Amino acid sequence: MLRAGIAGATGYAGIELIRLLGLHPEVQVVWAGTESYQGQELAGVYPHLRGRVDLVGQEAAAEALAGCDVVFTSLPHGVTMTLAPAVLSAGTRLIDLGADFRLRDVAAYEAWYKKAHTAPDLVAEAVYGLPELYRERVRGARLVANPGCYPTACALAAAPLLRAGAVSLEGIIFDAKSGVSGAGRGVNLGVHFSEVNENFKAYNIAGDHRHTPEIEQTLSDLAGGPVLVSFTPHLVPMTRGILATGYFTLRGSWTTEQLVDLFREFYAEEPFVRVRPAGDLPTTKQVWGSNYCDIGLKVDPRTGRVLVVSVIDNLVKGAAGQAIQNMNLMFGLPETTGLLQAAPLYP
Amino acid sequence: MLRAGIAGATGYAGIELIRLLGLHPEVQVVWAGTESYQGQELAGVYPHLRGRVDLVGQEAAAEALAGCDVVFTSLPHGVTMTLAPAVLSAGTRLIDLGADFRLRDVAAYEAWYKKAHTAPDLVAEAVYGLPELYRERVRGARLVANPGCYPTACALAAAPLLRAGAVSLEGIIFDAKSGVSGAGRGVNLGVHFSEVNENFKAYNIAGDHRHTPEIEQTLSDLAGGPVLVSFTPHLVPMTRGILATGYFTLRGSWTTEQLVDLFREFYAEEPFVRVRPAGDLPTTKQVWGSNYCDIGLKVDPRTGRVLVVSVIDNLVKGAAGQAIQNMNLMFGLPETTGLLQAAPLYP
Amino acid sequence: MLRAGIAGATGYAGIELIRLLGLHPEVQVVWAGTESYQGQELAGVYPHLRGRVDLVGQEAAAEALAGCDVVFTSLPHGVTMTLAPAVLSAGTRLIDLGADFRLRDVAAYEAWYKKAHTAPDLVAEAVYGLPELYRERVRGARLVANPGCYPTACALAAAPLLRAGAVSLEGIIFDAKSGVSGAGRGVNLGVHFSEVNENFKAYNIAGDHRHTPEIEQTLSDLAGGPVLVSFTPHLVPMTRGILATGYFTLRGSWTTEQLVDLFREFYAEEPFVRVRPAGDLPTTKQVWGSNYCDIGLKVDPRTGRVLVVSVIDNLVKGAAGQAIQNMNLMFGLPETTGLLQAAPLYP
Amino acid sequence: MLRAGIAGATGYAGIELIRLLGLHPEVQVVWAGTESYQGQELAGVYPHLRGRVDLVGQEAAAEALAGCDVVFTSLPHGVTMTLAPAVLSAGTRLIDLGADFRLRDVAAYEAWYKKAHTAPDLVAEAVYGLPELYRERVRGARLVANPGCYPTACALAAAPLLRAGAVSLEGIIFDAKSGVSGAGRGVNLGVHFSEVNENFKAYNIAGDHRHTPEIEQTLSDLAGGPVLVSFTPHLVPMTRGILATGYFTLRGSWTTEQLVDLFREFYAEEPFVRVRPAGDLPTTKQVWGSNYCDIGLKVDPRTGRVLVVSVIDNLVKGAAGQAIQNMNLMFGLPETTGLLQAAPLYP
Repeated sequence: MLRAGIAGATGYAGIELIRLLGLHPEVQVVWAGTESYQGQELAGVYPHLRGRVDLVGQEAAAEALAGCDVVFTSLPHGVTMTLAPAVLSAGTRLIDLGADFRLRDVAAYEAWYKKAHTAPDLVAEAVYGLPELYRERVRGARLVANPGCYPTACALAAAPLLRAGAVSLEGIIFDAKSGVSGAGRGVNLGVHFSEVNENFKAYNIAGDHRHTPEIEQTLSDLAGGPVLVSFTPHLVPMTRGILATGYFTLRGSWTTEQLVDLFREFYAEEPFVRVRPAGDLPTTKQVWGSNYCDIGLKVDPRTGRVLVVSVIDNLVKGAAGQAIQNMNLMFGLPETTGLLQAAPLYP
Repeated sequence: MLRAGIAGATGYAGIELIRLLGLHPEVQVVWAGTESYQGQELAGVYPHLRGRVDLVGQEAAAEALAGCDVVFTSLPHGVTMTLAPAVLSAGTRLIDLGADFRLRDVAAYEAWYKKAHTAPDLVAEAVYGLPELYRERVRGARLVANPGCYPTACALAAAPLLRAGAVSLEGIIFDAKSGVSGAGRGVNLGVHFSEVNENFKAYNIAGDHRHTPEIEQTLSDLAGGPVLVSFTPHLVPMTRGILATGYFTLRGSWTTEQLVDLFREFYAEEPFVRVRPAGDLPTTKQVWGSNYCDIGLKVDPRTGRVLVVSVIDNLVKGAAGQAIQNMNLMFGLPETTGLLQAAPLYP
Repeated sequence: MLRAGIAGATGYAGIELIRLLGLHPEVQVVWAGTESYQGQELAGVYPHLRGRVDLVGQEAAAEALAGCDVVFTSLPHGVTMTLAPAVLSAGTRLIDLGADFRLRDVAAYEAWYKKAHTAPDLVAEAVYGLPELYRERVRGARLVANPGCYPTACALAAAPLLRAGAVSLEGIIFDAKSGVSGAGRGVNLGVHFSEVNENFKAYNIAGDHRHTPEIEQTLSDLAGGPVLVSFTPHLVPMTRGILATGYFTLRGSWTTEQLVDLFREFYAEEPFVRVRPAGDLPTTKQVWGSNYCDIGLKVDPRTGRVLVVSVIDNLVKGAAGQAIQNMNLMFGLPETTGLLQAAPLYP
Repeated sequence: MLRAGIAGATGYAGIELIRLLGLHPEVQVVWAGTESYQGQELAGVYPHLRGRVDLVGQEAAAEALAGCDVVFTSLPHGVTMTLAPAVLSAGTRLIDLGADFRLRDVAAYEAWYKKAHTAPDLVAEAVYGLPELYRERVRGARLVANPGCYPTACALAAAPLLRAGAVSLEGIIFDAKSGVSGAGRGVNLGVHFSEVNENFKAYNIAGDHRHTPEIEQTLSDLAGGPVLVSFTPHLVPMTRGILATGYFTLRGSWTTEQLVDLFREFYAEEPFVRVRPAGDLPTTKQVWGSNYCDIGLKVDPRTGRVLVVSVIDNLVKGAAGQAIQNMNLMFGLPETTGLLQAAPLYP
């Protein structure tokens, strides 16, 4: 039984970790670090957990976390980098759901996040935890940077196309849409129900969103050279779910069916990527609560483009579920352990 | 491994049965009866199931169903009564999620449902499957009438009070609110998004709703004599969830704390009823996707009443989950088998 | 042209006043008092106003407000009582959308609002501005206490019954449901989209809500003697709208049709109360954005009760619209001036 | 006083025409044609209209409509083309909210709508009623084709850029998102609340949506040569509102501020187009219920693109409001008559 600690246990990603680890046969959560609810029963803060967990909020102290086998951190950027050295040097594995170790280029991190990085050596060691693309490196990792929610949806939509050289590296666009839980549990006018409900908006457009360099890093890996993207996030009046609409200019002549086959082959062994048949597109609710990423696509012969639509649950494949998938890999467990129980809920 | 058949597999209760039975270690769904999608892969109709089930829609024929160990029926009222005799005489157990066997008084059924009953002898045999109140009878049953969603929430809110004689039998009111999935998957203007969203309404008020006699039957059992209730359903712009606000006139003097204790004792051994501490009230999302019924209450000394608030997920404890709970009892399995995996999702 | 000032112009009730006064041919808003946005263009804070108003946020100072013909205050309780004396003594009329002058019993105010009242003489002078019941007194008033949103819906549902003596004064229950905008624009976890969406809850039940004594005050006026009520508020995942379900025990024998006639007569001359025909119940969206209160009812002969369902838009008839209706009365304008332009929007 | 008839009065666009014409001082609706509710009071079908209109549903017969001064048609495609000749030959003006007269190329109509056109001569005469671009031609028109909702949002986002030659004609993308009312009032699984709520999807992507050629027709007019676009519609879980995110490749070097200025000049005299300052983007709710189109934009120097975000209320500027704007022009009334009363509602 692995002993797991969570730093940031009462945020939305943290509480989803607790749900999912509760379904995992090989893990027990032993430490629930929280800024806001120290000394309080988690089941009081989150009554949906009543009778299911017996945890009390604790300080997210490095020493305590270092006593675990594995630690999940879901903290504001800049915090995990201060905890990581002590945790790792105790032999504990660390999976960071935040951004501190996602960008391999420390200067890029510092420019986008406006923060000096205090653990650049760990950046060099960290593995970007998108199992479908970096599985082998995750297996051996001490420190995994769990991908952002948008980058997960975008990278999985693009990977087969870029690996096959089927599309131009120029002019790639991701027009992405997210539910509100992606913004976290913090309160501000931007998540006020009366402001969000029956409303739709774009935000951080035209290269302003910090997930842009993360997406570009993965796409550049796939393409073997630098790739720029337009990434445009939008806020949908719903709680969970991300849908990314990817626009790619085709190289050569492809039919929808051929590209569906390409995607199916690429993801043939993947337990959590489901490619839709030609003519079918996924919707966010079809992966609600689960670790799946569903992908559909269609060629537009008029414009020479292919459109790829990918959906995930931002809190699962976009955060807690993917983190557990990484943990399974890191500890040599079957990759799906504990995750298939999180069946999509519909409706 | 129990072989289960479902008649009405592609309605919302049916598809929730498929989700939950997919988490159950002792059951395999072998027959998915459906009116609308015969010959079609379920994963095509419901893409959230892709890669998880390998079922094709079939006719809900009595002969086929009779080959199962257990059959769940989720059909328009009047249909199950025609299937039940053949299914039961084959030795198959039947759990009806519809209304055909809920009312022990056949005349009441015929009056409320405006339909002649063709299997009155089976009405006499059927057990009302609310495990918290009728567990022992469920264990031996061949035919279980799974309670309605509203009656489940109302009965569990009332039971400790009536058993203890703590409240008057006069003037009981249940003001209940349900998400839209309770109306099923059929299309009509009443479930059109643009009509429901940002809207709230009462319907079938003042004794018009067919769940009224079902609630009264259970409350009369609890009280040992006839009880009339005012039951008022409302439609909430959300998909899942029922909240029932029960109003009871106290007999004698009780504090909130005393009544919370009464409820805790009453439900001490119940795995799916969670009583909230005094001062805390449940919300529907706290049981979302799970088989729990959460209950909170408060005494109003000004008016001499106690208010009880109970919440369930109408598709789980109000339908598919409770049906599986009954199945577990009928087949001698631990009552929670396969059901605790359905953890509440929050947010 | 009346010169109007608003104190609390950037809250939801304030901004709705600005929308509605913008449709009013006899009023110009000249002062927009705000705590949070002083010196800022309102059209920057609320872009829906761009091109429609030319106001800049100002301090809500008594001297400035005293230069207006009429002042609307929409402020936290306890604040308006400090502004009112100066404003009124300048000859300016005051319409308070807050609670400071609603309860005629100063001790009750102090007990429910936990605040000493600093202007008890003005409490004695203030008129409760529910035009359908207190129209004549509003006409002459200097100071009008605009009713709370819930009390408006409840009082209009009850008035014909109590005036006619058709129901018992015992056992009156209002089970009420409100959209989220009723909680105002302030941010807290209780209005976070991810907490409210796909969720439903009761709050401040069993006599805890401050609108209870306000409802009782009006019902006692109607009945000519003390009336206690059970008032239970609930939060609906929608932005605007209140629906109150009223439960009354009938005195004597009444049919639904007879009571519909009673309501129709009672409200025959009322421009903003619409009584539904027997068999029809109102929904909140049917009055969305308008000053209407729609009412439907049904007798339940089984329990000897009548259920009355009333709906309002909490920001219009429950706040800003009713305030303008009062203003029209106070200044001798036709009562509907500027208000019928606010047509209900559907869907 | 103009006498107006509506064919398709009980659909969502029709009922919005009735709301808006009710605010118009120069028009009276005298004929409410409807397929489904003939002989029924509109206030019974749509209770929000109770006390506001006195219309009874009628057959949408050409003779009756020909007796009006102006007729609005909101009908399935293919129907208006059969009514138009008789209506127009009686001297009645016709504003078609459907698609029959939008495409000047009859062959394109027949290809996209899979229907033979029976009035090609009227296609030649019809004026595309986007006042901001075709105002002068609308003034003299007998027959106006009211633009589709998506094409309105897209054309207004693109017009200043194309007229100024600021962007390439290659690679234009509109990623558009709409509320559910755009799909009309007809019932089908695609508008079922439980299917739409907490869900987000793309549909008719990659050149499948019929609004594609309509957008291209207008953009080609603006550019003076053929333009192809990628148009991708999505469904948002909300009732009203369209947001279009337009992607354009810049020709030459432009800053956000310069382009904002360009848009401001282009729309300087437009009463219903509001250009946001640099750094500000519109959201759908900011135009809710109103005839405004709000536009914001931002240059992405990394990719050499400009992103333009435009929002409308699909039932107002995207349908009924724009139709009235056209009517005002056709009859020589001030263009804003009756439309500014439809103030945006927020929140």
